[in-house]
Amino acid sequence: MPAVSALTISARDTGSRARAGVLKTSHGEVRTPAFVPLATKATVKGMLPPEVAALGYDIVLGNTFHLFLDPGHERIARLGGLHGFMGWRGPIVTDSGGFQVFSMGHGTVADEIKGRTPHGANRQGGIVAIEEEGVRFRSYLDGSERFMAPETSMEIQAALGSDLALVFDECTPLNVPRDYTARSTERTHRWLQRCLDWHAGHGPEGQLVFGIVQGGVFEDLRIESAQAVAASACDGIAIGGSLGADKDEMHTVVGWTTAQLPEERPRHLLGIGEIDDLVRGVELGIDTFDCAMPTRLGRHGVAIVPEPDARWRIELAKGRFKASAEPILEGCSWPACAGGYSRAYLRHLLKSGELLAQRLVTLHNLRFVSDVMEALWGGIAEGRLAETAAAIRRGSSPSVLLARSASG
Amino acid sequence: MPAVSALTISARDTGSRARAGVLKTSHGEVRTPAFVPLATKATVKGMLPPEVAALGYDIVLGNTFHLFLDPGHERIARLGGLHGFMGWRGPIVTDSGGFQVFSMGHGTVADEIKGRTPHGANRQGGIVAIEEEGVRFRSYLDGSERFMAPETSMEIQAALGSDLALVFDECTPLNVPRDYTARSTERTHRWLQRCLDWHAGHGPEGQLVFGIVQGGVFEDLRIESAQAVAASACDGIAIGGSLGADKDEMHTVVGWTTAQLPEERPRHLLGIGEIDDLVRGVELGIDTFDCAMPTRLGRHGVAIVPEPDARWRIELAKGRFKASAEPILEGCSWPACAGGYSRAYLRHLLKSGELLAQRLVTLHNLRFVSDVMEALWGGIAEGRLAETAAAIRRGSSPSVLLARSASG
Repeated sequence: MPAVSALTISARDTGSRARAGVLKTSHGEVRTPAFVPLATKATVKGMLPPEVAALGYDIVLGNTFHLFLDPGHERIARLGGLHGFMGWRGPIVTDSGGFQVFSMGHGTVADEIKGRTPHGANRQGGIVAIEEEGVRFRSYLDGSERFMAPETSMEIQAALGSDLALVFDECTPLNVPRDYTARSTERTHRWLQRCLDWHAGHGPEGQLVFGIVQGGVFEDLRIESAQAVAASACDGIAIGGSLGADKDEMHTVVGWTTAQLPEERPRHLLGIGEIDDLVRGVELGIDTFDCAMPTRLGRHGVAIVPEPDARWRIELAKGRFKASAEPILEGCSWPACAGGYSRAYLRHLLKSGELLAQRLVTLHNLRFVSDVMEALWGGIAEGRLAETAAAIRRGSSPSVLLARSASG
Repeated sequence: MPAVSALTISARDTGSRARAGVLKTSHGEVRTPAFVPLATKATVKGMLPPEVAALGYDIVLGNTFHLFLDPGHERIARLGGLHGFMGWRGPIVTDSGGFQVFSMGHGTVADEIKGRTPHGANRQGGIVAIEEEGVRFRSYLDGSERFMAPETSMEIQAALGSDLALVFDECTPLNVPRDYTARSTERTHRWLQRCLDWHAGHGPEGQLVFGIVQGGVFEDLRIESAQAVAASACDGIAIGGSLGADKDEMHTVVGWTTAQLPEERPRHLLGIGEIDDLVRGVELGIDTFDCAMPTRLGRHGVAIVPEPDARWRIELAKGRFKASAEPILEGCSWPACAGGYSRAYLRHLLKSGELLAQRLVTLHNLRFVSDVMEALWGGIAEGRLAETAAAIRRGSSPSVLLARSASG
């Protein structure tokens, strides 16, 4: 266990495991609970770094796997590390590359985890061999054979200079047998130790290392894994792998896990970010979340709105918006809504393939999620999380909740 | 001739026909000489309206033809006109649709005018018939037959509510016989009168109407056309059509034309905007220019830089930039250069197909052109245009010229 926790907890909810606090990193503080926008290829898609900060985000997530393949961690190191390269002055977390390496290899099975086509699955990429030493795979860019071991992942993350590094793990998909999951999870624990050993000798000063809990959808394996990761010297704990076939199972699996985790260490939930999942995750004691959802939906013209029955989504390209003079979200004070851009205008831009549509909807989505996190934070800090969570689940607009909170 | 000119000339160059002034419109003033960024489909590609204004632009150009086909001028009128629809508070000029209608029909010949593939030429669009009454064509969107007469164009522009409307003209390509050009130019003059007649009865109050000089590359036809347009009641005069096979011929044709134009009316040069052409155009007495160049190059990762030998362009996707820590333009204080984004980073974004690259390079290009126009304005106002023009042609950075001007 680390001597000093990077997380300072300032408030706890009495009715759940939720907590609010501050995570200290080499590039500044992260107010938690927090959502972490993806900067997969060293950019939050379509957004300038100062805009991301202005949207209320303290930290972004860069992708070890993609940046390793192109333009390469050594080049990024020479260009000022990931902070200097992309011009983001705040904290950065890098994932380990494990998820991407394995989602390429497991092919369509991995789709189930994330509900999408994995990068390169149908192209020239793919796993060559999973060995105790590490993983051999082919680059989706040029088909060349590459090797990634736990030490490689940590070396790449050291070169990138991230503030939070994640250990290299095997990300098992949903439909693998318990036996495979058990053996894989044990290997992930051995890889955790190798990552920590490498980092102790070579890691950049101040870089925090997060272990990753695996164990699939099996309660005993999740508990064992949570305990094994908690027993290591990692600075924080991430929850990864397959979390179940539906939201209920996912919430159950996350609940099994957080029940086993030491209170004082920060907890990250990997790849989860739908509005109801953020609310439940916070109640289950998660501090930080990352997810492609707000930016990916934004690129496809899907806006996040306070409509639970519509999964908090509207597709602005639909014909029903062609004459709509409404903004995306009435009462929102941010440029995408308050700038006078109607749903009809956004639909026109989307139909015309205009970049501005992607920018405006992404901007809106990131702001919506940021407001949800701030509302949840306020709920914990002010001792009324149950009320805030219920309001969000009912479809209250987070900006309205924030305005109400600010006014007393 | 209009009773009162919309243009107030505040300074004239003694060594050329250049002048600086202010063009008054219903939505505010345009400082001239000015470049007009394209907002073809009701958006300056990738930019928010307040960003375009902050870049130093007073006016943008919307496209009558594209907006007529989709989403339709009537819908735009119901959504607050083009100003309300796109959220741009300043002046807007709309072209007449003539160029687009004819560039579809003349097919590859029209490529010569603009050096590009015309919209829809290889798709289902195209001209059905050019008649005295107007033009029948097929929509490039759905193949449906549409009709545009001079009155239609003015009616669309009235519905869009632009501040400056352009009359409907036939835009003749380079390689048509003199005889065709002569007959076409005469018809354009008859269409000019029909546009002015329609506008006098139905045009929105305060909307200015610009006539268009045609005449191809034939000196006598250009002179005749310039005189015919000047003799009409139009508020301003645009120069259109084929201007020649190369820059020298284009400058000659523009020179023939401006020599014939009344001093007091504003002059617009259609579709021209390369750096050397802006400098020469200002010297020849042009007040405003529009061109897709800065935004189109930006979308393709081509940055405008003060390098005359490279046609003021660098392609940031080239391999030679892969390790370059330099910004696009050293000494430029705007976000694309001063934000810490290296050429290597921009190349990475371009190779990865990231939206942010298009945004940053477009931002830079629009700023560069805006700085060029401001430097030229300063040159006229301060009586040293020859020096400023020579410095730009030699490859001085316009931001450096502006800084020097401000400090001395």
